[in-house]
Amino acid sequence: MSFLERSAAVYPDRAACIYNGAVTTYGSLHERVRRHAAALQSVGVRAGDRVAYLVPNLPAMLEANFAPMGIGAVLVALNIRLSSREIAYILNHSGSKVLVFDSELADTVRQLRGECPGIETYVQVRDTVPLADDIAGPEYEQWLAAVEPLAVLPGPASENDTTTINYTSGTTGMPKGVEYTPRGAYLNAIGEAMEIGLNWRSVYLWTLPMFHANGWCFPWAVTAVGGTHVCLRRVDPAEVYRLIREESVSHLCAAPTVLTGLYSAPEAATADLTGLTIMTAGAPPAPQVIRTIEGMGAEIIHVYGLTETYGPCTVAAPQPEWDQMSSEDLARVKARQGVPYMVYGVGLRVVDEDMQDVPRDAETMGEVVMRAMP
Amino acid sequence: MSFLERSAAVYPDRAACIYNGAVTTYGSLHERVRRHAAALQSVGVRAGDRVAYLVPNLPAMLEANFAPMGIGAVLVALNIRLSSREIAYILNHSGSKVLVFDSELADTVRQLRGECPGIETYVQVRDTVPLADDIAGPEYEQWLAAVEPLAVLPGPASENDTTTINYTSGTTGMPKGVEYTPRGAYLNAIGEAMEIGLNWRSVYLWTLPMFHANGWCFPWAVTAVGGTHVCLRRVDPAEVYRLIREESVSHLCAAPTVLTGLYSAPEAATADLTGLTIMTAGAPPAPQVIRTIEGMGAEIIHVYGLTETYGPCTVAAPQPEWDQMSSEDLARVKARQGVPYMVYGVGLRVVDEDMQDVPRDAETMGEVVMRAMP
Repeated sequence: MSFLERSAAVYPDRAACIYNGAVTTYGSLHERVRRHAAALQSVGVRAGDRVAYLVPNLPAMLEANFAPMGIGAVLVALNIRLSSREIAYILNHSGSKVLVFDSELADTVRQLRGECPGIETYVQVRDTVPLADDIAGPEYEQWLAAVEPLAVLPGPASENDTTTINYTSGTTGMPKGVEYTPRGAYLNAIGEAMEIGLNWRSVYLWTLPMFHANGWCFPWAVTAVGGTHVCLRRVDPAEVYRLIREESVSHLCAAPTVLTGLYSAPEAATADLTGLTIMTAGAPPAPQVIRTIEGMGAEIIHVYGLTETYGPCTVAAPQPEWDQMSSEDLARVKARQGVPYMVYGVGLRVVDEDMQDVPRDAETMGEVVMRAMP
Repeated sequence: MSFLERSAAVYPDRAACIYNGAVTTYGSLHERVRRHAAALQSVGVRAGDRVAYLVPNLPAMLEANFAPMGIGAVLVALNIRLSSREIAYILNHSGSKVLVFDSELADTVRQLRGECPGIETYVQVRDTVPLADDIAGPEYEQWLAAVEPLAVLPGPASENDTTTINYTSGTTGMPKGVEYTPRGAYLNAIGEAMEIGLNWRSVYLWTLPMFHANGWCFPWAVTAVGGTHVCLRRVDPAEVYRLIREESVSHLCAAPTVLTGLYSAPEAATADLTGLTIMTAGAPPAPQVIRTIEGMGAEIIHVYGLTETYGPCTVAAPQPEWDQMSSEDLARVKARQGVPYMVYGVGLRVVDEDMQDVPRDAETMGEVVMRAMP
């Protein structure tokens, strides 16, 4: 929260968000978030209430990472690929009062509407398709325009409050809600910024869904340094390459399968990724993926984490001797995991199947964490 | 504390500290700190006890930033330029039980010895001059060699304990002790690392005294990222230029007067500071200082802080339009202050003489902070 306020004060005219060529400055983003917070209040949202968003990586979803928090409410970012049954479960389980959704997903909302009596207000975001007239409720931009922006965003009352709830993917049963606190979100955001090397000149492309472990805290990390968010509805390789080139993207996060999709696309033949740093996690990247992407000029940072750990929290930390390695050897060592982030010091315990501590060094931790991955 | 443990685990063979060409790896630094902590225990130091150091920027002083903290004791780093009367006052005021001192400063210790009955143990560091035989107590290296290193450093019990006490320079009366907590030290160390842009490849030259506001938290910041500390007994321009060149120094901190000394030295004529980032504070640097040093290839980051704020906490944050400025204009805007560090968000209140809030923006804050400086 305070990250956004700082960047609005320090970089009021710098691009905070770019989507389809439209630029929102930090000053304007701050104003929109204050409007968004007022709009939430106008439909009865109070501190502690849960607010759900079924929206891809559009500017509205970025704004949702700040507006509920600004009034002490709780963000629930929904995985847009879940079934309506799963989404209904999460809405009810989280006790959400508001559902903001992308009009492309109106069908899903139609299917779950009858099962979610707790949702008092539906808000539609119009981007690619017209509004669904049969679902009552305001359109997002009109909802924001109808209120005066709050002058001050009080934020959560305590650093240990719940500020977002992130549901796991449900691979082992129904999705489970993981509560993030402002303290944890702050620390992991700083941690991501340090590991990937963000600064105020950074341009971050949103290839990672913001609903995956809160976008690994990058909504806050990029904002903290005053960098630029480049929003992206869906990961289409041609569009990704175009944005990297035209918006001078310096950083992105992506699962290894997304990277495979990128280098397998026809555009890869002529793409130059020099100056791009890519954080990858979600599954262990094959050395082949790392070698190919780095061969195109990008640098890969391989990290590991869970929804339960605010996203990635361990990293295949580069070592001095890597500088002398062949690209084959480098890809092989980079494919392994990992040590705790700088911000976590040694605040990480690695245990084997019997909950016995495993000695902590870069070698064994790598093996253990890899073994523990689903 | 945990920063050192992490770097010892992640970068055991990387240079943690270089002094007079001798390299101490992170593995070895960690072992020495664990010995140092055991040595403190061997002379009766327990959690909460205060331990004072009258030592310039030698490796022993760097180690002192971790060993007392490792057993929950409290570091008191003394300004070696103070009079024996002032030092005696601080030793008594802080209730220090141990005084570790550089043998060059034996005269000062002789003068204060009779006035400090609380000091139970004197430890001498031998570097440039022989030990003072008339002051009883072990020599630092022998003191460390005589004990087994602690296997585990428990660290402070709470993040809100006192972990170091930093005395102000006493310009407005007797020195006042400022208590640093682990939480504050952690946050400001991360803050410095982010603002100056440290990473594991960084090589940091100790031109800033570690006794000034705890070396602006850089003992912890450089260690957190696994960078290399280059120790330096005194700031001699020829030696500074030699180290920058031969050790590939990437970062240093210095007051503007030190920078003036650097560019006025004969070695400046042939020096190339490309790739060096310099954080400056302590007094407002004249645009002339910034322009001259940047003309030699370095980048200046102008910050401001107090002993009371863990060292620097506001920064002349670079702005996009600075890229198009002439070196004259750039030096002029860089000479102004400042906005809160990224890690502090807007957690800084600027007031005028009547304790009224001053509007927070980059322009007015700069003027106010400058006006408030002593």
